[in-house]
Amino acid sequence: MQTDILIIGGGPAGLVAAVTARKTYPTKKITLIRKEKKAVIPCGIPYVFQRLDSVDKNIMGNQPLTDNQIDLIIDEVTEIKPTEKEVLLSQHESYTYVKLILALGSSASSLPITGLEKENVWFVKKDFDYLQKFREAVLKSKKITIIGGGFIGMEFAEELSHIPNLEINLIEKDNYCLANNFDKEFALAAEKKITDQGVAIFTQHTVKNIGGERKVAFVELDNGEKITSDLVIVSIGARPQIDLAQKAGLVIEKKGFIQVDEYQKTSHSDIFAIGDCSQTKHAVTNKNISIMLASVATNEARIVANNLYQLDLIRKNPGTIGAFATSLNGLFLGAVGLTEKMAQAENVDYLIGEAEAPNHHPGTLPNTQKIKVRLLFSHSSENILLGGEIMGPPSSAEMLNILALAIQQKLSLFDFNTWQIATHPLLTSPPTAYPIISAAQVALTKLHKIK
Amino acid sequence: MQTDILIIGGGPAGLVAAVTARKTYPTKKITLIRKEKKAVIPCGIPYVFQRLDSVDKNIMGNQPLTDNQIDLIIDEVTEIKPTEKEVLLSQHESYTYVKLILALGSSASSLPITGLEKENVWFVKKDFDYLQKFREAVLKSKKITIIGGGFIGMEFAEELSHIPNLEINLIEKDNYCLANNFDKEFALAAEKKITDQGVAIFTQHTVKNIGGERKVAFVELDNGEKITSDLVIVSIGARPQIDLAQKAGLVIEKKGFIQVDEYQKTSHSDIFAIGDCSQTKHAVTNKNISIMLASVATNEARIVANNLYQLDLIRKNPGTIGAFATSLNGLFLGAVGLTEKMAQAENVDYLIGEAEAPNHHPGTLPNTQKIKVRLLFSHSSENILLGGEIMGPPSSAEMLNILALAIQQKLSLFDFNTWQIATHPLLTSPPTAYPIISAAQVALTKLHKIK
Repeated sequence: MQTDILIIGGGPAGLVAAVTARKTYPTKKITLIRKEKKAVIPCGIPYVFQRLDSVDKNIMGNQPLTDNQIDLIIDEVTEIKPTEKEVLLSQHESYTYVKLILALGSSASSLPITGLEKENVWFVKKDFDYLQKFREAVLKSKKITIIGGGFIGMEFAEELSHIPNLEINLIEKDNYCLANNFDKEFALAAEKKITDQGVAIFTQHTVKNIGGERKVAFVELDNGEKITSDLVIVSIGARPQIDLAQKAGLVIEKKGFIQVDEYQKTSHSDIFAIGDCSQTKHAVTNKNISIMLASVATNEARIVANNLYQLDLIRKNPGTIGAFATSLNGLFLGAVGLTEKMAQAENVDYLIGEAEAPNHHPGTLPNTQKIKVRLLFSHSSENILLGGEIMGPPSSAEMLNILALAIQQKLSLFDFNTWQIATHPLLTSPPTAYPIISAAQVALTKLHKIK
Repeated sequence: MQTDILIIGGGPAGLVAAVTARKTYPTKKITLIRKEKKAVIPCGIPYVFQRLDSVDKNIMGNQPLTDNQIDLIIDEVTEIKPTEKEVLLSQHESYTYVKLILALGSSASSLPITGLEKENVWFVKKDFDYLQKFREAVLKSKKITIIGGGFIGMEFAEELSHIPNLEINLIEKDNYCLANNFDKEFALAAEKKITDQGVAIFTQHTVKNIGGERKVAFVELDNGEKITSDLVIVSIGARPQIDLAQKAGLVIEKKGFIQVDEYQKTSHSDIFAIGDCSQTKHAVTNKNISIMLASVATNEARIVANNLYQLDLIRKNPGTIGAFATSLNGLFLGAVGLTEKMAQAENVDYLIGEAEAPNHHPGTLPNTQKIKVRLLFSHSSENILLGGEIMGPPSSAEMLNILALAIQQKLSLFDFNTWQIATHPLLTSPPTAYPIISAAQVALTKLHKIK
């Protein structure tokens, strides 16, 4: 079989690449190959246990593919032959392509500990049938231990905390949970939201063994403490799926991702890679980082779909700013660009501005909550915004995307002084104390004092 | 008495000017004069009837003034003498100033109709004592008629609709309510939210008389129809307070506002004007417009506070983009920049992109609602964003501020293709179909077809 644009992988990256390619190239034949009959929505996985009442409600439909005349093939790719521009499949005959996009995704990481083979040890896999069994097992459990306090572990802990009479323990090796995402104040606020729900968090601990006969009975920590558990969830991150790319001779960069340039092109012309399997640079530090988020993946997908046949100079990838949001028991927490910890590690000369404001005005309105904003500006490079963290009620979540836009546009702390906003008593902080503007003002005042 | 920076007016504009001036000029003496013992929060007024249980809960505290060492004088200014740089007061001795900021505000407009003097005809005044009596009268009423379907009228209608057993009628002269703020689809969605609450809306009607003996008994429409009413609220807009400025010989522009330049300076050096009383240009059309919003006023206040003693070239006023948000029975509606109606009136060559998406992902999550985004891009001028309208649940309100930032930064529809965002199942639209990006994509596809 022959096609023009062939996409391997049907996650968010593959889907958006296909749909955007259709808009860019209305007459090309586009084919998407994926293994899964039903494509699970990755970021929705923690919510299939309570908020959604089945895994079936967490599926990406095929409608966008059909609507955009994209051929969907459910099959496993067994080999990519770059020279022949051919892809071999397990069940179907092979496909030749003009342009190939790899959206191979990632799979759950494992741990160097004993007992992982025991019954009721579960990983966060993007696999429909597996998740159905996982869900049933969770709903039968009484004592669950989660290994890993990153955002997936925390979101699992929160979701499962709404199941009555379930004991939940969470083990995190770092000083606090979400240490890769947030500075301390924000991370501790996140932890509190989880412990308030009755979850026990064990920070600064690793696991050395999962004990029990055939089935899980306990989790043994580094200090020998045994936590009784009838189910274990391993959520310590993910690793890129690169087997097919490696076998095809594509260059893999140091962190283990498929190497790509700013147009998402791999070491082989006519082969592109996007999403969790592909190299991602940080826009500020310019270093390769191990970030795997659907929002980053879909952005790469939009970029690649404009660069397949000719380079679109406007739409090249400037690197990721790592915009990230989570929700824990009603608290939104988001970060974008550099945290203070990252700025210190990278030796960036920075200036912090912080502010807090009610999410309504007057603050006497019912259900008023606080929004906290922390902005990190460059001190020496024209005072541009390099990073920001926000926490507050769900209504403040889109404020993080304001910061995301500001970082990408290289806005300085001066720009916030004349920034015009819409405010409303029932919807936003007051116009007199909008927290992004106030935080920039605080940084500006610090700057005046230094000068 | 002598002061360095004298501010007349204690609304949001005056307050923010005072506080920001303190940050810019740490050693200057700053004095704020206002008439009101208690300064009402203007945008919170509709909510004192139900959501807040007293007018006292809708007060701007004096804490920011105290915290910033700003002298507060409660008194009425009787005259400004520009040559002497002196301000005369009703109760206190006069003040001389180095720089004077007029934040005189606005007052409710009236109508050329008969019967306005009748008991229980109320205007939307920013006056604490008046509002207390107004509130009591409303709570005793059974049939209220609101004259004017602008945002204040609509917000009053919505708030009052939560009072049990109250009949509410609203009269609007235009084809639909909120016609100055939104294009038709959005305006009709707003109307539906109000009529769903049982409010009767009479569009394309004016009022010719308010009838009754001493007290209001009915409102008589242009067609002679009489609407039985025991209370009438007149909310047909506001006019700038310029008496003091006029008497002082300052230039008043054609629309009746105090003329200012891009640094908020009036026709007299050392006198500045901000907020509802001052001229406001539209950033896109460059025409003077009659916009009176606290968010516009506070932005002008931040600008003036940086331009008092020397001009700050970065912080000049580029004109307003009129960012505006309202909330009607759980529906947020916002607009910024040009609506299509405005673009047509100004003969702008434009391109529209529209998109709709759920506010969660998957859309099967509980309480998922739709977000509608409508973007208006320039067709001939580098395809920059000129305007946008958004409606959806309250969680989408801050998305309007993203558009506000994009318009001010002159982002084009291409910029949205590589715009990185944070998404989360419980907080935002999916990364595969984030509606601002999708709407820009739709406009881009149209552009390709035209070219």
